[in-house]
Amino acid sequence: MFQARIYVTLKQGILDPQGNAVQGALASLGYQNVEEVRVGKYLVLSLAHSDRAEAEKEVREMCARLLVNPVIEDYTFELQEVSL
Amino acid sequence: MFQARIYVTLKQGILDPQGNAVQGALASLGYQNVEEVRVGKYLVLSLAHSDRAEAEKEVREMCARLLVNPVIEDYTFELQEVSL
Repeated sequence: MFQARIYVTLKQGILDPQGNAVQGALASLGYQNVEEVRVGKYLVLSLAHSDRAEAEKEVREMCARLLVNPVIEDYTFELQEVSL
Repeated sequence: MFQARIYVTLKQGILDPQGNAVQGALASLGYQNVEEVRVGKYLVLSLAHSDRAEAEKEVREMCARLLVNPVIEDYTFELQEVSL
């Protein structure tokens, strides 16, 4: 059994209106030191695989097919073996 | 200058309809091995601080006041010094 933690971020240069909104809200609370905010997704998947290579391959495939929009997003992930 | 990476997740036991939708979509694509999906937020903040302790304090404060709903969400974060 593996746990995959997937971090999906907007590519550099892609506008992030949600991040800008968060930055504006923080500024209005007095946090003027925050120069940039980027908002991404954090997905945690539990995979019933016993083989690490197979789990890794499947995570890449799922990202490419559904979880990530490769036009505007990048992703990284970590795989961790977990016991039930 | 510091970069804060904040991972916001739903607490254990809180229903995650977005995660369930993703799991359903993955299952319909043939990924039956995915037993659970939890969807969280991943925030990257650039902070114009020179002092690590101060930056850390501010991140905690911002999480408590705006970024995280402590009733249903947990968070962790990492601080990394970056050069301009």
